[in-house]
Amino acid sequence: MNEFDLIRTYFAALGTPREDVELGVGDDCALLAVPPGQRLAVSIDTLVCGTHFLADCDPEALGHKSLAVGLSDLGAMGAEPAWMTLALTLPPELVSRNPNWIAAFARGLGDLALEHGVRLVGGDTTRGPLSVTVQVHGFVPQGAAIRRSGARPGDRVYVSGTLGDAGLALRQILAGVPVEPGLRERLERPTPRVALGMALRGLATAMIDVSDGLAADLGHILESSGVGAELRLESLPLSLAVAEAVVAAGDWALPLASGDDYELCFCLPTDRETEIRGLAERGGCPLTPIGRIRKDAGLRCLGPDGSPVLLARAGFDHFPGPGD
Amino acid sequence: MNEFDLIRTYFAALGTPREDVELGVGDDCALLAVPPGQRLAVSIDTLVCGTHFLADCDPEALGHKSLAVGLSDLGAMGAEPAWMTLALTLPPELVSRNPNWIAAFARGLGDLALEHGVRLVGGDTTRGPLSVTVQVHGFVPQGAAIRRSGARPGDRVYVSGTLGDAGLALRQILAGVPVEPGLRERLERPTPRVALGMALRGLATAMIDVSDGLAADLGHILESSGVGAELRLESLPLSLAVAEAVVAAGDWALPLASGDDYELCFCLPTDRETEIRGLAERGGCPLTPIGRIRKDAGLRCLGPDGSPVLLARAGFDHFPGPGD
Repeated sequence: MNEFDLIRTYFAALGTPREDVELGVGDDCALLAVPPGQRLAVSIDTLVCGTHFLADCDPEALGHKSLAVGLSDLGAMGAEPAWMTLALTLPPELVSRNPNWIAAFARGLGDLALEHGVRLVGGDTTRGPLSVTVQVHGFVPQGAAIRRSGARPGDRVYVSGTLGDAGLALRQILAGVPVEPGLRERLERPTPRVALGMALRGLATAMIDVSDGLAADLGHILESSGVGAELRLESLPLSLAVAEAVVAAGDWALPLASGDDYELCFCLPTDRETEIRGLAERGGCPLTPIGRIRKDAGLRCLGPDGSPVLLARAGFDHFPGPGD
Repeated sequence: MNEFDLIRTYFAALGTPREDVELGVGDDCALLAVPPGQRLAVSIDTLVCGTHFLADCDPEALGHKSLAVGLSDLGAMGAEPAWMTLALTLPPELVSRNPNWIAAFARGLGDLALEHGVRLVGGDTTRGPLSVTVQVHGFVPQGAAIRRSGARPGDRVYVSGTLGDAGLALRQILAGVPVEPGLRERLERPTPRVALGMALRGLATAMIDVSDGLAADLGHILESSGVGAELRLESLPLSLAVAEAVVAAGDWALPLASGDDYELCFCLPTDRETEIRGLAERGGCPLTPIGRIRKDAGLRCLGPDGSPVLLARAGFDHFPGPGD
């Protein structure tokens, strides 16, 4: 089999068979059925070699992450994953140099797809500089999606998991120092908070996934909702490694402004807070209150002594686009 | 405004506003409504600089073609276009060198989207080597999609428009000779046969769009349907320029095996042939019978004297993938 046959073989039946896929890979289009009463939620993301990952990265981890970033977007709407499409651009020399590359990539993508009941329904493979584009498709009952625009003054701001782990791993890689395995896992194989997102339907007033840093992404909620927020920095959920790095650096850029966290940031009316107590255990990650929504625009950060802290960097310089 | 603001400005509201778009660009996911009784048809395609187009190509034509190839896939299923998503990877120096690049690309994409009632509902813009991925989404009534697998022995094989024009334009470009404007238009701004595809619902037994050359794409129909076909080469619809090139070269590779035609190839029971007579005029392009489906596998080509012609090249060497 040549590399083209390999791609066909590995990708033809990736993920979970589903009855709502009337026709999958192999015709001009896939034919798909959205259940009555459900809205279709879609998100498309590209990972580019040299921009989002390194050329020598583990292809299995790349396959995982290519889907994880999209599942994180579905989670942030409260949507249930269903299908994916894949546009893979491959340099032929990559495959001739590493014949196992395609199999490993497909395994990483396929394992996460199976875990979330997602089916590959279409794709395109082209020659060129390495990049991966995945579009995810999910369902959310009409009226139940959690948008960025619903935050109200008085709501508590929550975040799942811990912040800054992926950013610290990237710092260590770029500095050429040994990377702690737990941090590398957080950078290369993020866990999309899909079940948590679905469980927050009817509870959270606004939600976003933290992919560009908490300050920037919470900023999108504030802007869309026409509100502001006050964060207590000492409340930010940090791993020990990140807490040490924050103390050593004397600034909060790591948890506030590094990318790739893929945690959920959401707003909750204070009279609903008791209802999420069980979610942290069921969701497999802590849910931490970190601040409050205010009427006045802007993001205020309060230091441990209660005085305002200036955000030297509110978010790392990324390249925004439609649907960003 | 910097380049990021420009992208946001140009792409935020591209195409036709539609009531079935509950939430478009600007949140974690778009929220979309598929009408009852309809199947969702999707197709994703990537155009890579250096593989599918040249670095100095007209950005407006690139915007047009990026959507046209997907609309051609919808046409080939008999589906009605509705939405698109866009993943655009841009080298920052491209935009600094040509500040009008983004506006021109958006114009080419947006004009074709308006023409077909398509709305941009999401996207991602990233830094890296230039490439464009578009996913198209359309509707087709349940059971009405025209697949590749329905061809039956005795069916007549038809093709729309003319074959080989884009291939001849590419030959002229690669040879460094002046390109005839009509041929360049066929290469750079193909016309997707969307209305024709929809009109063939309930008539055509099988259909595909010709993007990799007639021999290869008709081959997909034959394989999916478990049949063969006999083509009469003198029946192939050719522009004068391609006819001259075929005579000069003494082979049929141009109409049979060059890419980018974006015409529809379909099969029709002979007792339905009278029903498509009006379609050529309404569809804006000729519909030409070029051969017959046979029970025996394989593609037989008959020369003007009725004797079999060997296909030196059955299709150009492309890079197949899922959904190819």
